[in-house]
Amino acid sequence: MKKGEFELIDTIREMFPVPEGSLGIGDDCAVIPQKGGMDTLVSTDMLIEGSHFLLSDVSAEDLGWKSAAVNISDIAGMGGRPVATFLSFAIPRGTDDSFIDGFMKGYREISSKYGIPLLGGDTVASDNTMCINVAILGEAPAGKARLRSMADTGDTIYVSGPLGDSGAGLKVILEGIERGATENALVHRHYRPEPRVELGMKLSGIDGVHAMMDISDGVASDLEHILAASGVSAEIDVRKLPLSEDLKKACGLHGWDAVRLALEGGEDYELLITADPSLDLSPFGLTSIGRIKEKGAEPINWIGTTSMDYKGYHQF
Amino acid sequence: MKKGEFELIDTIREMFPVPEGSLGIGDDCAVIPQKGGMDTLVSTDMLIEGSHFLLSDVSAEDLGWKSAAVNISDIAGMGGRPVATFLSFAIPRGTDDSFIDGFMKGYREISSKYGIPLLGGDTVASDNTMCINVAILGEAPAGKARLRSMADTGDTIYVSGPLGDSGAGLKVILEGIERGATENALVHRHYRPEPRVELGMKLSGIDGVHAMMDISDGVASDLEHILAASGVSAEIDVRKLPLSEDLKKACGLHGWDAVRLALEGGEDYELLITADPSLDLSPFGLTSIGRIKEKGAEPINWIGTTSMDYKGYHQF
Repeated sequence: MKKGEFELIDTIREMFPVPEGSLGIGDDCAVIPQKGGMDTLVSTDMLIEGSHFLLSDVSAEDLGWKSAAVNISDIAGMGGRPVATFLSFAIPRGTDDSFIDGFMKGYREISSKYGIPLLGGDTVASDNTMCINVAILGEAPAGKARLRSMADTGDTIYVSGPLGDSGAGLKVILEGIERGATENALVHRHYRPEPRVELGMKLSGIDGVHAMMDISDGVASDLEHILAASGVSAEIDVRKLPLSEDLKKACGLHGWDAVRLALEGGEDYELLITADPSLDLSPFGLTSIGRIKEKGAEPINWIGTTSMDYKGYHQF
Repeated sequence: MKKGEFELIDTIREMFPVPEGSLGIGDDCAVIPQKGGMDTLVSTDMLIEGSHFLLSDVSAEDLGWKSAAVNISDIAGMGGRPVATFLSFAIPRGTDDSFIDGFMKGYREISSKYGIPLLGGDTVASDNTMCINVAILGEAPAGKARLRSMADTGDTIYVSGPLGDSGAGLKVILEGIERGATENALVHRHYRPEPRVELGMKLSGIDGVHAMMDISDGVASDLEHILAASGVSAEIDVRKLPLSEDLKKACGLHGWDAVRLALEGGEDYELLITADPSLDLSPFGLTSIGRIKEKGAEPINWIGTTSMDYKGYHQF
């Protein structure tokens, strides 16, 4: 395929008209108005063996957890309340029953923790590849879901927690690095992300909170979506990026670039928020990392670094 | 995997509690009450290369059509109105752009025909296997969606159109049979099913229409779900099964058993309905094929045949 992922999505978006009042492709979730004063939010994510996980590394329980987590995080990214999930599961013939049991155990663990029922799905037999799709339904009071298009010039840019841990965990996995406590913690952050549901709902109740999304591809890539949708640019001070002690330690040990992992690693599933500069969101545990500017020559002006080439994860 | 599909689904169902007022696993769709007098319906179906389609045979356009059709049919099976679809697509690296374009063209064709927007999804790169998941959202007036558990003793059992064509089309494909006009028509019915949306909505507006579902695995298997959910049995007169001229002709030519194809072939995506015997639903184009009985020793009593072993399609 010659088209990139985002180019393909753009083509699809142009082909399918969106009904008046609804929001289609382009945010973490679609938004569909109901009759009773609420909006329905819908998102769906597919994980495929080889591209998104390696059966040789991931435990069944962790895979179950993560499959639900990445979808719950899409609802959190709009400030919504998760209502139900739907699991489609292509299972290679010959898969051990204990793997399925473990997967469902991990899936139930996160579902119980966040109080989200599994209300349907599909199980199919596959020749050789495991493929998992989760669709999630959420809701938010009408018009209150936070979109990528809501950033304003002058907004403060926040993130909700340390970045780069998940990307470092993935490096540990892919490079087969020996695992001590530090590496295990990073791998755990990769496999067991905690979607920021409660925080997202709190923030969407505050008027001055503007654009919001979850960080799945890395701030460098995800922020560009907010900037493009809002017609603005940004200035990011990379010295302000929140980094965990584990990440700093692992970067020291293995010679990794912590800033690059924080910006490009992706899959941290923290929230990326822009808010009116009169607000101080630090009491919510948010860290200010920059500011929204008028549209400029470059989408992002990086401060505190000589590198200017940060890019998020692109799969195609 | 030692567990069968239905056994696995039962295990999952037991693991996840369903909130009061909602309907979870076990019908064509989940049913989730909204605040404004409507119920949200949700279904999701996964199609995987090798198990559900062969890239060597299916055209990209037909695959796009069918991926949406099987989901739209789930909404039709409950008598709901489709609201939006969500497409997840694992695309093997190296797939031709023209294939994706063709797929989206077929998907758009059926979406336009039935007036259903595509509001989101996910595109992922895969190593070798194509996997497609569609999630669909629908709605029905509160409490009006028709469930498998609603059949009553004495109900007339109806189907909405000819059965077995799709199964015969699949035989043509799998056995590599030379295709004349008859075979092409059957293959077309396999790849381009027409979900009975309008009919389903009409029927769900009639009080005496009880249980309803779409025919995806074949009447023999699908009817058993209604019988189990409603705690009843059935008597089916196989001589009454509606068969198309194409099917009869192909069965004559190739020595196939038309009744077996009609009962076991599956994927016709017609509706299976039970209704109060005082109603006559033949003006809607429905064909009566039998009657609901009190729970008996066998779930289905077959009349007009010496075979007693009809089974629907089971993939595991």
